[in-house]
Amino acid sequence: MQMVTDIDILVSEVGPRDGLQSIDSVLPTSVKEKWISAQAAAGFREIEVGSFVPPKLLPQMADTAAIVAHARTIPGLQVAVLVPNLRGARDAIAAGANKISIPFSVSETHSLKNVRKSHAEMFEEVTRIAALIAATDPVTRPHFEAGLSTAFGCTLEGPVSEDLVLRSAERLMECGVAEVGLADTTGYANPAQVKRLVRKVKATVGENKLNSVHLHNTRGLGLANALAAIEEGITTIDSSLGGIGGCPFAPGASGNIVTEDLVFMLQAMGLETGIDIDKLLEVRTILSAALPDEPLYGFTPDAGLPRGFRGRTGKP
Amino acid sequence: MQMVTDIDILVSEVGPRDGLQSIDSVLPTSVKEKWISAQAAAGFREIEVGSFVPPKLLPQMADTAAIVAHARTIPGLQVAVLVPNLRGARDAIAAGANKISIPFSVSETHSLKNVRKSHAEMFEEVTRIAALIAATDPVTRPHFEAGLSTAFGCTLEGPVSEDLVLRSAERLMECGVAEVGLADTTGYANPAQVKRLVRKVKATVGENKLNSVHLHNTRGLGLANALAAIEEGITTIDSSLGGIGGCPFAPGASGNIVTEDLVFMLQAMGLETGIDIDKLLEVRTILSAALPDEPLYGFTPDAGLPRGFRGRTGKP
Repeated sequence: MQMVTDIDILVSEVGPRDGLQSIDSVLPTSVKEKWISAQAAAGFREIEVGSFVPPKLLPQMADTAAIVAHARTIPGLQVAVLVPNLRGARDAIAAGANKISIPFSVSETHSLKNVRKSHAEMFEEVTRIAALIAATDPVTRPHFEAGLSTAFGCTLEGPVSEDLVLRSAERLMECGVAEVGLADTTGYANPAQVKRLVRKVKATVGENKLNSVHLHNTRGLGLANALAAIEEGITTIDSSLGGIGGCPFAPGASGNIVTEDLVFMLQAMGLETGIDIDKLLEVRTILSAALPDEPLYGFTPDAGLPRGFRGRTGKP
Repeated sequence: MQMVTDIDILVSEVGPRDGLQSIDSVLPTSVKEKWISAQAAAGFREIEVGSFVPPKLLPQMADTAAIVAHARTIPGLQVAVLVPNLRGARDAIAAGANKISIPFSVSETHSLKNVRKSHAEMFEEVTRIAALIAATDPVTRPHFEAGLSTAFGCTLEGPVSEDLVLRSAERLMECGVAEVGLADTTGYANPAQVKRLVRKVKATVGENKLNSVHLHNTRGLGLANALAAIEEGITTIDSSLGGIGGCPFAPGASGNIVTEDLVFMLQAMGLETGIDIDKLLEVRTILSAALPDEPLYGFTPDAGLPRGFRGRTGKP
């Protein structure tokens, strides 16, 4: 989704969704709002603020409609949400989300286990959601993306066929999504694989129909994989403040790449993110105060910025 | 130093030197020997086993001559040591080291503080060491390398001039070193800078006169920087088992990149290292048993290898 032209890389913060849904603590709505506002004030253009899932399953996400309403009051912020199905998409549209993502597990075993749907059922669901979105007012119509999860391997199946990734991407586009993303759900990806798969998916669905990757740092390769993705033309990288994203060893869930380290890397490289890294590092204190028992990851927050670092907003 | 042709990347283990010299504990000689033997048995071709420095300054390195003697009994192992000066080089030659490295701080402030020598004095010292080595038996003559430390920035000076890096590299070659290396002593490097500087140094001293980089993970960019270096033709990467390498915030010292994660990345990418990663992960237990109070870093050891990972010795 190439809305922004004054930045080189869009860092999409997924902590309020992917981070919080993986931990037991339920963050009060007011703290979520404070976090999202502070991070937007630090220059973030897109934040995945929650997911529309049954509150019984994920009580942490029960206030997503209220969070979307708050986030929509922040000028210039792309308010993204995750939905697992048509019902979630309806709620997301009603709440006023700007962007709706649905995860599609390329590993069908993982899909059956995670959302109890086969690939065929998922394609039907995506088609229905696309139709629902197409019927909304064009002015406020949300952007619709499918994330190809377990694209780099699956904790249940092991290696995942690249051919299946490509066929899934193609089919999802036919079902009506505006673009696809690649997700390393299991932290199995390596830089060579990221480059190869980004090239292949772009060649299959179109250069500008794959712009984003969601990477994990489970085996420490998160930033190396992000670098590889950027070198192949990826312009949106998901990451999570403090790397929150739950237990790195639970099947299907694992440590997100750390927003603070990612932004440092990008700005040190001279890539414009629009983010004030000093302000970003302050946002971390909101999270550590609210979640005193959760470990926060990241090296840059501890080490500090290099002496004479000029990358406050990117370009030296 | 391109001795090996059956591997793509030489992972040079520096833990017994760079790791141990940064921590207070003094590892018994027998444990060092066990560690080095086990890591060589896992397929490592080069290990920096110690440094020849005054035992009063670094009691951890007092047994380096004995360690070199032990390591030299391991067939096929390149036994590397670090020396700060001519006296250390004499000891290294006497002990029978295969490779002698001397650090040269491109930041002269850092050089004066670290080894109390100006650049002019360092060039003289390097010239004397080169002459000493040239006078040894050609059959057993050690390889002589200068590491350009603080090449990516200095905690005392801030940014370091790339032009000064190039002039230092050129001058060190004139003083008689066989090759130069680039070291991110402070953990300031970013992938764009690594690529640019590797290209420039190779263009200055010759394509095959810069083969190695020594990177730190202070701000989490270690593996991304290693990837960048490899993409520019670097074939030797230093790393430390468990990332030991002391306090990440002490001036001039900071967390080394983690051998376990580096080897996983390389082999997952299909690059041959000659290393058996399962055996490598077992070596870690020697270190954790011997240094129970030292934190060991690394993600791959905790997360384990991906399901169905075929990279035991690299090529899928």
